[in-house]
Amino acid sequence: MSNALFTPDAVATTLERVRAATPLVHNITNIVAANSTANALLALGASPAMVDAEEEVEAFAAMAAALVVNIGTITAPQAAAIARATRAAQHAGTPWILDPVAVGALPFRARVALDSLAHAPRAIRGNASEIMALAHLRDGHAEPPPAGRGVDSLETAEQALAAARRLAQATGACVTVSGATDYITDGTRVATVANGHQMMTRVTALGCTATALAGACLAVEPDTMAACAHAMVLLGLAGECAAREAAGPGSLQMRLLDMLYHLDRDTVTRQARIAILPP
Amino acid sequence: MSNALFTPDAVATTLERVRAATPLVHNITNIVAANSTANALLALGASPAMVDAEEEVEAFAAMAAALVVNIGTITAPQAAAIARATRAAQHAGTPWILDPVAVGALPFRARVALDSLAHAPRAIRGNASEIMALAHLRDGHAEPPPAGRGVDSLETAEQALAAARRLAQATGACVTVSGATDYITDGTRVATVANGHQMMTRVTALGCTATALAGACLAVEPDTMAACAHAMVLLGLAGECAAREAAGPGSLQMRLLDMLYHLDRDTVTRQARIAILPP
Amino acid sequence: MSNALFTPDAVATTLERVRAATPLVHNITNIVAANSTANALLALGASPAMVDAEEEVEAFAAMAAALVVNIGTITAPQAAAIARATRAAQHAGTPWILDPVAVGALPFRARVALDSLAHAPRAIRGNASEIMALAHLRDGHAEPPPAGRGVDSLETAEQALAAARRLAQATGACVTVSGATDYITDGTRVATVANGHQMMTRVTALGCTATALAGACLAVEPDTMAACAHAMVLLGLAGECAAREAAGPGSLQMRLLDMLYHLDRDTVTRQARIAILPP
Repeated sequence: MSNALFTPDAVATTLERVRAATPLVHNITNIVAANSTANALLALGASPAMVDAEEEVEAFAAMAAALVVNIGTITAPQAAAIARATRAAQHAGTPWILDPVAVGALPFRARVALDSLAHAPRAIRGNASEIMALAHLRDGHAEPPPAGRGVDSLETAEQALAAARRLAQATGACVTVSGATDYITDGTRVATVANGHQMMTRVTALGCTATALAGACLAVEPDTMAACAHAMVLLGLAGECAAREAAGPGSLQMRLLDMLYHLDRDTVTRQARIAILPP
Repeated sequence: MSNALFTPDAVATTLERVRAATPLVHNITNIVAANSTANALLALGASPAMVDAEEEVEAFAAMAAALVVNIGTITAPQAAAIARATRAAQHAGTPWILDPVAVGALPFRARVALDSLAHAPRAIRGNASEIMALAHLRDGHAEPPPAGRGVDSLETAEQALAAARRLAQATGACVTVSGATDYITDGTRVATVANGHQMMTRVTALGCTATALAGACLAVEPDTMAACAHAMVLLGLAGECAAREAAGPGSLQMRLLDMLYHLDRDTVTRQARIAILPP
Repeated sequence: MSNALFTPDAVATTLERVRAATPLVHNITNIVAANSTANALLALGASPAMVDAEEEVEAFAAMAAALVVNIGTITAPQAAAIARATRAAQHAGTPWILDPVAVGALPFRARVALDSLAHAPRAIRGNASEIMALAHLRDGHAEPPPAGRGVDSLETAEQALAAARRLAQATGACVTVSGATDYITDGTRVATVANGHQMMTRVTALGCTATALAGACLAVEPDTMAACAHAMVLLGLAGECAAREAAGPGSLQMRLLDMLYHLDRDTVTRQARIAILPP
């Protein structure tokens, strides 16, 4: 695992691999993000499918190139499907990533998220409040820390870095904290991504989209931490290019898809802001 | 409750309050509207969250600044969640608003809507057919009047005004009837809003969006009737500004989000068309 | 059933009939497509409603002008609703169309799709892999052929033509295979539609949208095969007009709705590419 994986060139290579492989990405996701994330995965070059019936998820998680689990509008049947899908992914060796949306606010979804950790997620991505809450719960606390509000974060990503490291060490997953600067850690090393634009916080489901794109990258890049960091660059870069010409969040949402479709090695190499922190 | 609340200036003040408070708006909504309404709430400046698991809605409705209940794609589990959420909102003092989508066409959702009225909605918003049907059912008729067709209205808002007054008096809720002119009544007074654009009827979920924005306004404006009227101005004004430059309903949907994001005191003050009818 | 129904003029007439009748189209659909297909139906001039509660679908399918059944994110409750809705549609004479999304990959949805065939669908639309899989299963094979992957097709539409004819003959439904060229067959005759644009494959839910528009056309055009072919022209033509000015899949999705709204007899007559193959 060389630092050469945390360079603009390596991001461009992952992008090209996604387009060459068009990996089938199995999504168990929420009703807000379903359309947005399917479009983002298609625009990037992957092949998304949303499947969350208990009867279907085991077979599909086993045949997919990656599984994305998002608890944003969790229900009891979906919780049962997540348990089955993540177990099947673990057994089949399908890399999977957890998006613990609003996990700090609600005990039911906290239970679903915690239980899923037993099935060896390759990665976890959330905002600062979500990662701090999940780490706290994983430490054995019955209640989350007093943080987060709904789906938005009240902390900066940097404040969540210690929690992210702890969560990564406890679970073996690579943990990404999204924010103005994103932090990606395997528990030891820490990479940062500084692409993105403030207006992206006014478009719904872009956090979910980051997780979905990480799923596509996990399907083609064996280094989990690199795959997660590359996905953050690709989404952030598409977002900042889109924001330059956007008249507001509606146009930003539309142009972001156009930009994901047009990202190329040249743009990525010149504009990716990815680094690995010194140990 | 002064008539000064039904002025362009008062609308602008509500807009500024939403942006200052970024109220957490809990939505139990349909699969068509989920993405659209989340984006509209974010663009306006609120913090939306869609939560409809039975296991989660009580806690979330209690912590939210407002609750929006929309029965557009109601299912039995969602009906149970609505019963719990609205009861919790009533007990916690969370203002909540009902959108009785297509209530006249289908007895199951009519039952859900009627039952929810026992939990003291602060407000109800629908098109003319929906308000006439709900008022008729609330009067004790087993069947709705022969009106409405699917989710569209066959009557004008003005024709539904008597029903709206009656429904407001019977429930204690402020009732909004959407149309070319919107009518908002607490059973006694009637306010009108004349913002909007005909092409908005060709974009899905804008009725649902009106209700969701009313939720955001209810969170910051204690006068329910003013909050509902202000939301109709904000959506209608964003829609008419968007329509001026829209090439069709696709661009209208996108630009409407841009406009919600850019609305300011100056635009609202100059273009809001809000009035209160003489007694 | 004259060949005059497979002409640009006939497509334009169907378009005008949809706008005149604004048919109520009942959709049981997936969480990815719900917003997109509602908007497409509205832009074209129809009146969409998404209703999939078991308690509601029978009454609604009976009152609707057409029913669209899409199994893209099927769940057990939705499967039960589909059984009820399709039976009710058959009894009421409501034309209905099946979209067997990803039917080849997953036995549960294969069962749902096969069972629904007993209720006399007027039409079926899918990509090549889906139609080949459904035909194979309908022939009595327990397993689908080794084809398809997730929701995308690995075969061309032409390769699926024999399967489409066989499926049409076995079920009495008109079968449409979408692709670069679309094939529409009643088991004997074959029509082709060559409108569309390659970039449409990078926008989610456009296959679902084709099926939904076919529902709208079935509501106004009694010749099923003509209705299905006309819908493929209308979507393909809107898509190719949109693609000319689109900067990518995000803009394409938006402009496609604008174009559906603006399609008129003149554009359709000049640009429709519809033909019926010699026997």
